[in-house]
Amino acid sequence: MSGNKVAITIGDPAGIGPEIALRAAQVLAPRLDAGEFRLVLSGSREILEKTGRSLDLPVPPVLDENSDQPVSILPTSPLEGPVETGKVTAEAGRQAYDAIAKAVALAMDGRIASIVTGPLNKEALNMAGYAFAGHTEMLAHLTGVRDSVMMLAHGNFRVSHVSTHVALADVPKRATPERIGRVIDLTYEALIRLGIDNPRIAVAALNPHSGEGGIFGRHDIDVTQPLVKAYQDRGWRVEGPVPGDTVFVKLKGGQYDAVIAMYHDQGHIPVKLLGFNVDPVTGRWDALSGVNITLGLPIIRTSVDHGTAFDIAGKGIAQASSLLEAVDFAIQLGANSRQA
Amino acid sequence: MSGNKVAITIGDPAGIGPEIALRAAQVLAPRLDAGEFRLVLSGSREILEKTGRSLDLPVPPVLDENSDQPVSILPTSPLEGPVETGKVTAEAGRQAYDAIAKAVALAMDGRIASIVTGPLNKEALNMAGYAFAGHTEMLAHLTGVRDSVMMLAHGNFRVSHVSTHVALADVPKRATPERIGRVIDLTYEALIRLGIDNPRIAVAALNPHSGEGGIFGRHDIDVTQPLVKAYQDRGWRVEGPVPGDTVFVKLKGGQYDAVIAMYHDQGHIPVKLLGFNVDPVTGRWDALSGVNITLGLPIIRTSVDHGTAFDIAGKGIAQASSLLEAVDFAIQLGANSRQA
Repeated sequence: MSGNKVAITIGDPAGIGPEIALRAAQVLAPRLDAGEFRLVLSGSREILEKTGRSLDLPVPPVLDENSDQPVSILPTSPLEGPVETGKVTAEAGRQAYDAIAKAVALAMDGRIASIVTGPLNKEALNMAGYAFAGHTEMLAHLTGVRDSVMMLAHGNFRVSHVSTHVALADVPKRATPERIGRVIDLTYEALIRLGIDNPRIAVAALNPHSGEGGIFGRHDIDVTQPLVKAYQDRGWRVEGPVPGDTVFVKLKGGQYDAVIAMYHDQGHIPVKLLGFNVDPVTGRWDALSGVNITLGLPIIRTSVDHGTAFDIAGKGIAQASSLLEAVDFAIQLGANSRQA
Repeated sequence: MSGNKVAITIGDPAGIGPEIALRAAQVLAPRLDAGEFRLVLSGSREILEKTGRSLDLPVPPVLDENSDQPVSILPTSPLEGPVETGKVTAEAGRQAYDAIAKAVALAMDGRIASIVTGPLNKEALNMAGYAFAGHTEMLAHLTGVRDSVMMLAHGNFRVSHVSTHVALADVPKRATPERIGRVIDLTYEALIRLGIDNPRIAVAALNPHSGEGGIFGRHDIDVTQPLVKAYQDRGWRVEGPVPGDTVFVKLKGGQYDAVIAMYHDQGHIPVKLLGFNVDPVTGRWDALSGVNITLGLPIIRTSVDHGTAFDIAGKGIAQASSLLEAVDFAIQLGANSRQA
């Protein structure tokens, strides 16, 4: 039974993934023991055991689908070479890919409810022969879906993206009415699953000042305005185009439940500015919150919104806050998905 | 003598400009009386007097250059038609333009040290026959300088822009090495004037992930990287390209003194997100801080970073915080300019 089983893929095993996965399991233990949901850590058993020993974190047993374990390990294939903390290697890339492939296979099979992914290193993946621009592209490959949508969320601050990993010069041609419409639809559906009735969605303008009446471009007038009008005509609370430099201030102020950003930096800059902090003295990233949710896949997938942090990996100081937030989003999306 | 005379132009007289100008003068009175600097309000005498009466704010006398007034009015030409609070009219546009033209003339003449501009309404300006995209373009016209740079600042969070009022599709071709270099130079100079020795400047990437090794565009590799290297070679603390979604988090964390943004939304989104607030209950903008500084002009010019707020104009609830911050920046820039 898939029940309420959430898988965490530990990401690149040379980064902070293994330790934040074990730490998340430790933090979640009371809820897991109470039967609220079950947790599966997908990754190298050897590395999880080594990390647990060195950082004094409890290491769960290997998954046994016939027993009712609160937390367990879904092991990847055995290590075929050394994986050293903080080092980019092909073996780490191979392990990272395998952890995702195994979790996706179980999810597609209905044996786990959702997947929460840890941070990857693209160079390691490339060395292992997996040339994906990111998680999203890898999941598209594994699930056969090519037009998924990236939503970033930090608490109630939720932003979905019309385009992500493309050059800025290619952004305008990606912002077609079909694609913007799909992003609105999937965002609306996700907000409903997150328990928000009649959600309010704002569509960010592509151009500054929404094009200033056409002087700085006509996209917002010719594409976004009529599209938004069509949604309003069917009773949806969709607004736009709203200029980029005000729409996120209004989102922060609770005027919307989500914003549709036209491109990567337009959406990522505000979410990361609110969710991340760099310590002014050490220059170290000292707070990483925010979750990456992939909409439009046949499986539920959320992710941490930060990188592998090779510089602090293995030191026992990495924070599991973003990962824990991602688990909570996955549980909510999964629960309401089953109700629907 | 120009001395330390700061002019505030009251902006569109139908907006919150007149009241925040009078409120700023009231708040600054102790410093003005102590002789720290002198303040000139450039705008319609009739409107300032009417606003002062209705909101119970002190109204200064008309400027007399032979006396040593702490605060005074530089009057625009008399009203030629009605100006009603909250209404867009040609007369309001004419007045707004006249206030700027008069202040700029005095500044170019060396009779005032700096100009702080209040918020404009572009429609009113257009109705009056002044078709400028914004203040910056108007100041370019009045001073003869066409390649000025917009810096937004909220405390120590300072962002200069390579391009501003252009369609997103035109951004890549505006980001030439010459223009980026000029923006770095002017930003460096402004930071020195603001009292920062050996300032640290980061150049934001044009493309997401700085183009991911060229997969999402080569601008950051081909243009920004060699330019930054050239600055580093002469000993300047310039870094980049730094991806947009991390560079502002690091700026917030004190790792840089300023960031060079490639386009309007890239720079405006983070500054406004940190400086502005919308009240979650009323939906009203309840905190507006942040200053707009024009670099590269023959005169010192700072500005509020918010609009005319027609909806709350005349009600006595508009906050002068951004205007006061702009006055402080103008004083600092002016003081260090004279020392230099």
